[in-house]
Amino acid sequence: VIGRTLSTREINSSSETVEVKWLEGTPALALGTTFGLPWPKGKHLGNQTTFLASTDSGEDVSLQSWVTSYWADGSVKWTGHALGSSESIPDGYEIRAVKGAPQRLKRQSMNVVNADDEIIVDTGKLKASFPKSGNVLVSSLSTSSGKVVGQNGKLVLQSQSGAADTGDSSAKAGIDYYQLESQINMTTIDAGASVRTLITIRGDHRIVSSKPTATHDPWVPFTVRFYLYANSDMIRIVHTLIFDGEADKDFITGIGLRFDVPLEGEELYDRHVRIAGVDGGFLSEAIQGTTGLRRDPGKAVRAAQFEGKKTPDITTWDTRVSGRLQWIPTWNDYTLTQLSPDGFTLKKRTKAGQSWVKIPGGTRAGGLAYLGGATTGGLAIGHRDFWKQYPTGIDISNAATDLGQITIWLYSPAGEPMDLRPFHDGLGQDTYAKQLDALEITYEDYEEGYNTPHGISKTSEIFIRPFDSTPSSDELAALTKVVNEPPVLVPDAAYIKQTEAMGTYWDVPNNTTTTQAAQTIETHLNFLNKFYQGQIEQRRWYGFWDYGDFMHTYDTDRHVWRYDVGGYAWDNSELSPNLFFWNYFLRTGRADVYRFAEAHARHTSEVDVYHLGPYNGFGTRHGVQHWADSAKQIRVSTPLYRQVFYYVTGGDERIGELLHDLMDADKTFLTVDPRRKVRQDNGTYVPDPTAIDLDLGIDFSGLAAVWLIEWERRGPRWQEARSKLNATMHGIASLKNGFATGVALYNIYNGEIKPPATDPENRGHVEVSHLSASFGLPEIVAQITQYMGDDLPAAFDQAWLDYCYYYGAGAAEQRARYGSSFGNLSLKQGHSRLTAYAAKRSGNVTLATRAWNEFLNTDGFAPTAPWASVTLSGSRVLAPVDEAAWISTNDVALYGLAAIENLAQVGSAL
Amino acid sequence: VIGRTLSTREINSSSETVEVKWLEGTPALALGTTFGLPWPKGKHLGNQTTFLASTDSGEDVSLQSWVTSYWADGSVKWTGHALGSSESIPDGYEIRAVKGAPQRLKRQSMNVVNADDEIIVDTGKLKASFPKSGNVLVSSLSTSSGKVVGQNGKLVLQSQSGAADTGDSSAKAGIDYYQLESQINMTTIDAGASVRTLITIRGDHRIVSSKPTATHDPWVPFTVRFYLYANSDMIRIVHTLIFDGEADKDFITGIGLRFDVPLEGEELYDRHVRIAGVDGGFLSEAIQGTTGLRRDPGKAVRAAQFEGKKTPDITTWDTRVSGRLQWIPTWNDYTLTQLSPDGFTLKKRTKAGQSWVKIPGGTRAGGLAYLGGATTGGLAIGHRDFWKQYPTGIDISNAATDLGQITIWLYSPAGEPMDLRPFHDGLGQDTYAKQLDALEITYEDYEEGYNTPHGISKTSEIFIRPFDSTPSSDELAALTKVVNEPPVLVPDAAYIKQTEAMGTYWDVPNNTTTTQAAQTIETHLNFLNKFYQGQIEQRRWYGFWDYGDFMHTYDTDRHVWRYDVGGYAWDNSELSPNLFFWNYFLRTGRADVYRFAEAHARHTSEVDVYHLGPYNGFGTRHGVQHWADSAKQIRVSTPLYRQVFYYVTGGDERIGELLHDLMDADKTFLTVDPRRKVRQDNGTYVPDPTAIDLDLGIDFSGLAAVWLIEWERRGPRWQEARSKLNATMHGIASLKNGFATGVALYNIYNGEIKPPATDPENRGHVEVSHLSASFGLPEIVAQITQYMGDDLPAAFDQAWLDYCYYYGAGAAEQRARYGSSFGNLSLKQGHSRLTAYAAKRSGNVTLATRAWNEFLNTDGFAPTAPWASVTLSGSRVLAPVDEAAWISTNDVALYGLAAIENLAQVGSAL
Ligand SMILES: [Ca+2]
Ligand SMILES: [Ca+2]
Repeated sequence: VIGRTLSTREINSSSETVEVKWLEGTPALALGTTFGLPWPKGKHLGNQTTFLASTDSGEDVSLQSWVTSYWADGSVKWTGHALGSSESIPDGYEIRAVKGAPQRLKRQSMNVVNADDEIIVDTGKLKASFPKSGNVLVSSLSTSSGKVVGQNGKLVLQSQSGAADTGDSSAKAGIDYYQLESQINMTTIDAGASVRTLITIRGDHRIVSSKPTATHDPWVPFTVRFYLYANSDMIRIVHTLIFDGEADKDFITGIGLRFDVPLEGEELYDRHVRIAGVDGGFLSEAIQGTTGLRRDPGKAVRAAQFEGKKTPDITTWDTRVSGRLQWIPTWNDYTLTQLSPDGFTLKKRTKAGQSWVKIPGGTRAGGLAYLGGATTGGLAIGHRDFWKQYPTGIDISNAATDLGQITIWLYSPAGEPMDLRPFHDGLGQDTYAKQLDALEITYEDYEEGYNTPHGISKTSEIFIRPFDSTPSSDELAALTKVVNEPPVLVPDAAYIKQTEAMGTYWDVPNNTTTTQAAQTIETHLNFLNKFYQGQIEQRRWYGFWDYGDFMHTYDTDRHVWRYDVGGYAWDNSELSPNLFFWNYFLRTGRADVYRFAEAHARHTSEVDVYHLGPYNGFGTRHGVQHWADSAKQIRVSTPLYRQVFYYVTGGDERIGELLHDLMDADKTFLTVDPRRKVRQDNGTYVPDPTAIDLDLGIDFSGLAAVWLIEWERRGPRWQEARSKLNATMHGIASLKNGFATGVALYNIYNGEIKPPATDPENRGHVEVSHLSASFGLPEIVAQITQYMGDDLPAAFDQAWLDYCYYYGAGAAEQRARYGSSFGNLSLKQGHSRLTAYAAKRSGNVTLATRAWNEFLNTDGFAPTAPWASVTLSGSRVLAPVDEAAWISTNDVALYGLAAIENLAQVGSAL
Repeated sequence: VIGRTLSTREINSSSETVEVKWLEGTPALALGTTFGLPWPKGKHLGNQTTFLASTDSGEDVSLQSWVTSYWADGSVKWTGHALGSSESIPDGYEIRAVKGAPQRLKRQSMNVVNADDEIIVDTGKLKASFPKSGNVLVSSLSTSSGKVVGQNGKLVLQSQSGAADTGDSSAKAGIDYYQLESQINMTTIDAGASVRTLITIRGDHRIVSSKPTATHDPWVPFTVRFYLYANSDMIRIVHTLIFDGEADKDFITGIGLRFDVPLEGEELYDRHVRIAGVDGGFLSEAIQGTTGLRRDPGKAVRAAQFEGKKTPDITTWDTRVSGRLQWIPTWNDYTLTQLSPDGFTLKKRTKAGQSWVKIPGGTRAGGLAYLGGATTGGLAIGHRDFWKQYPTGIDISNAATDLGQITIWLYSPAGEPMDLRPFHDGLGQDTYAKQLDALEITYEDYEEGYNTPHGISKTSEIFIRPFDSTPSSDELAALTKVVNEPPVLVPDAAYIKQTEAMGTYWDVPNNTTTTQAAQTIETHLNFLNKFYQGQIEQRRWYGFWDYGDFMHTYDTDRHVWRYDVGGYAWDNSELSPNLFFWNYFLRTGRADVYRFAEAHARHTSEVDVYHLGPYNGFGTRHGVQHWADSAKQIRVSTPLYRQVFYYVTGGDERIGELLHDLMDADKTFLTVDPRRKVRQDNGTYVPDPTAIDLDLGIDFSGLAAVWLIEWERRGPRWQEARSKLNATMHGIASLKNGFATGVALYNIYNGEIKPPATDPENRGHVEVSHLSASFGLPEIVAQITQYMGDDLPAAFDQAWLDYCYYYGAGAAEQRARYGSSFGNLSLKQGHSRLTAYAAKRSGNVTLATRAWNEFLNTDGFAPTAPWASVTLSGSRVLAPVDEAAWISTNDVALYGLAAIENLAQVGSAL
């Protein structure tokens, strides 16, 4: 029986303790944390286990727990946990799984009122109201003492109908401008919150009716998640939008989150602006300054103002100042703008209609601003990775009135209009023949109409924190660090490995690097990680749509990555670097690797994938624009690439939604025929939903990952997922040549597989591609095999083992087994991990040796490669860079994956 | 007789040799250089002297020479010299002044045709045509081989009728956009050019008739100077514009110089774009790339393209590439944008209507671009101090067509519209009483209507260089260095001192630092120079209107300069820091000091001064905006602040024009009454041109400088200048209390002086201000005294010596001499140089000791001051900075001036 549920009796009754530690060391602030933990198969039943937490010094702390994934037997595989905020921050926690039904813990100073029209959450340290309709997401935000410091929190969006395509001013004529705001469609709140409350608001953006501009249909759907923690005065906001416009008509010019900050009753000289600068630096100003004047109000006044404290009573000031406040300008508006990753500018003005005054700026801003008063309190808002996400900005407005505003611009209106049009006009590639010919030279797989951003998305993180009074700049600097590097709790790598809950194809270095040869490989893996981290900075792989990705191939002549050459530019997860970097994190627990992989996961899951429209659920092949290539495939959107991130974060809800949404991705085969350019019958071909061409490598690996993850998560459609997975596995097993068949016919209703159209009688078709196993097929099959255990269809297992054995076995053996050879195959270094898998499963030492030979002595990176970069400067390059001309990302991904998996699976044969 | 002309007989008949050396060491390129040389009084007659040049190794080189200033006796005081370009660059030159009428040297391979409709200049290395009418400044630019690589060179200007004052997109509605181009009004060419030809084109900007936009009157007058040198293939362009718009209606959005670059006949893959990046770095691309492709055209093809050489014949390429060129995108347009001093972005596109593709950018761009072909040749254009002058940009356009363009944006259209409106609305300061009260607190001297940019100007330097074929990137890197640090030739400081041609109130350190006390002062002077150089960078004193200036006063509470506090922000030459820094350069010959003072001279002479309109000839007092303060005075525009720069550069023509233009500055007293806010009779006062109130300190020092410099230059109005100078001197001398009278009545027609209105009988008014002598009065009087020698009115000399003696003499002596004390005076450290002058003149050692006591033990910087800065970082500051909280620019200027002058005048008494 598949998915048999474990009985209570089978659960290990002894309690189990797991340590978690801070990824980057103990943080200065812990304002609520969510993390994930893996558990061994067969140990804990979700409804029979209570998870308890204590600090490393033994103090019990409240813990909210939930299950993010289950073993097939129903025991807990991964859990998510939330800890509230605490004053003293331990270096780590111990999490105990103890037998017993989870008790509904009382909400730890967390009070939630879910009314018809709004939700009110009181964390004990702040109180926030979330209306369920209208344009306002947060109607009121107050401190524990009851000061309302934020109101009317809403999203703002600006767009225009065209872009000035020439330098002529006249090009600006005839452009319509649109001013839009959020409109709520649906609000949900998670059930059973004790330590953490999550409110999810969905909606779209609509024209602001009070400000008549040109009309525009509602567009840019959003999902905004608010995470509130017990005893915490900070709210984490995860903001997602989908671009659903037309690239040639809809040019976004601003994406923002805006809060009103009540300032009534606060003297202008007691109102404070704080804006984060460089490396914890701050601009610290008052709306009406008392420093630097010709007359001195008194040192206490000046010091208080700079420190954000209430100034002494004005009757104590030198009257030469207090009598002349009317002559001291008040600064109503501030703006910080980061239009490049290297520089920001700052300015302020007394009011609209007057010139801005430049404030000296700097290089990279921290992305946080505070507006408030010494007595009225105020609000801080921070935008994670602010300068990396350029063009970004922060506005503080109307600070000299009764109601100020802070606007965080996720896309700054001061930047260029967002231009998502194709970068070329098709170059006359109006037939498949021409497109295929062009593919031969630029490696771009072009087709008109496919180069659309319609449906891509972007997720940003924002943090808001109310204050009873203006905090010190040191406090805000600490907050800025939290905003940019939110503290993460992780268990030890060896523990994760031991649970086997995140694959068995990797191991920690301590278990695998007993030999000098293994140590050398470790050195190489470290080099590759460090090199890519450095390239992000040196090659300025930053920006709203770009940050998190890296490039595909290097141009050794120009000393640049091929950012402008068709299929060689943005990598879009080609050949699974995601899996390499995440597995490298799993086995090392390194913070630098985590942050790199995190940014990569965010980008590749959002920007490289369609979330609505005709290509919904598919991703886009590598290219100059993330969305431009006409190859739309599930190999790019495969949830396998986000799986580790999802579980390690305790089930990041945005990622979780993306994983589940792919359950309908197979329907997109009906609109996107991956074989349209090469099939004989194109022109007459009509897709049959019961017999879609399915690539048993790149398509099956994606679908299988969708299904397994939905199943192990016990998602809403997990039974359908399990059923389809089983059907496809049995189907593949039933093909005479199994995986070597290459392509088969797939029934999108039930997952059934039939032999390919070229071999309806299942006599044995052979079509093996170097790409088939390059998008996570080995990893997902390994996971399925482990997951299903004895329930795995044996013929499927054999089909896979055969594929693993024969890919590198040579033409003679292939012919003997399949009747024909696999042809001239490449990516042998990467495929050595398939050989290693077969070797491990069979215990065949000769095969293990073959695996290492394939890894070390075929293609990819040889042991004799430079394994170093050189620094280039002078006129050959725009700015000094490190170059490793021998590196391509394809090779990096394959080397990294094979190294890790070979060490884990056949390390002793090295 | 004043200004008696020396007879030929009196001229020293022996020849004299002067060495000049490169300021920053021998440069890699010397593409034509102009420099200045001083000569002792009575040595050389302009029409009886020939100047000859040889390299330091003895090789004769052609030299063009002219006289920039004469001693009163008619002998040569300063000369200007031009050297053509040479392949081998010596470490220095020897310039010999030999007796004999200057021979008209044959134009050294420099051929000039001055026709009715155009001027054609052939330097031997390039040929350029300058039409005398129309919108094109340079109609054709060709290499020595005859390749036309530049055409249609013109100025472009964009502006709009309003600025969006709110973030609402709707604010953009209703704005008119204007597209303008240069229109020539007048072209002049210097006479007698042999080594250097200077063409000066004046005009304004007019709506481009072929591109209908809203209408606008012609505006923004310009003067563009083209400097061409024999044997040189580079043209230096000095571009000046005056803002003559209305701040609330005219928002400039782009100021550019654009050249067409013919590309017809060049293959797209042999067309090259080069754009300067960081520290000599370059982007090196072809319009159609052959590198990084899926198929390799051949290594020779790739290497040639990257190196800018013609690729091998296409028939030799791999046909898998040559057969598919139609699929390789061509990049028509490139744009580099520097919107902050810290970061630039780069992008390119295939054509208008398609999205731009981001090219990784960097921090600070070199400001140079090249467009051209391997066989057709091309054009490089560079903009000096590109990133310091942000917002700046470079466009390369239409490079895939037969006619490309390069546009250098002195003000980038990608930046914000230039907003020159007042920064506040007057704050209700609608009476003089209120304005004076406000002055007490913000130190801003406000008055409605005075805060106008109408008439301020800006000068920029651009370099253009044609190439027969695409140069190497190393060549362009060398050119970029020349653009940003144009090589300067200077004589030795000791020689300048010895000639006494630039004042006798400074001396070289070797002559003055024989004591430990003097050495300490040298250390302090060095500290002040280095500190201000560092503050420019750390405080980001950069930008189109700001670069070159520094701030007035520091805010020790906020750890920022008082950029936002009224009169404490931009310094606008307050208390003559110009003289300090230039004198410090004169005595040290240091390159860092020269570059600092050069930028300061450019800024303060242009932006801080009105060049047309009601305030023409006056400058603006220090403030938040360079033009905003209502105190418009000649103390800011005084030519004394540009005198050293003018002579050292061999007579920079833009500076020279500014000096001469001030001859009418005294007429502006009729429209701007400096005493309007304080005079008893305001409201009824009507200025009488024969009896204008003239401050004998701050006004006289400015006018005297105008007149002396016009006289010594033998400018067109030098006799009028000499006459007015004499009249005012005799007038001051005739006042009972001389300079201590403070204010007198001035006749703008003839310079005659009458006693002040409060003392028509000349019984002896006393009105001494700490400011009177703080704007160059000591220095200009010293120059006049030296200049006139025996012709100096003795009573004037005595009046000045009295003032110098009594300012610091104390109340009792003042009363004894003048009948009343001078009151409570400050700036004693600065005034110690007056005491020192009196001491030197009188030989009174006691007085010399008094001078040093005033310098060391009164106000200003004490010897016990910290004389160091501290580095601040963390949350107190926006970004790490060095702070010297004990420093104010007023004190720096006065300390520096007094230190230098005291050392020179009474150094032995220290
Ligand atoms: Ca991507
Ligand atoms: Ca200024």
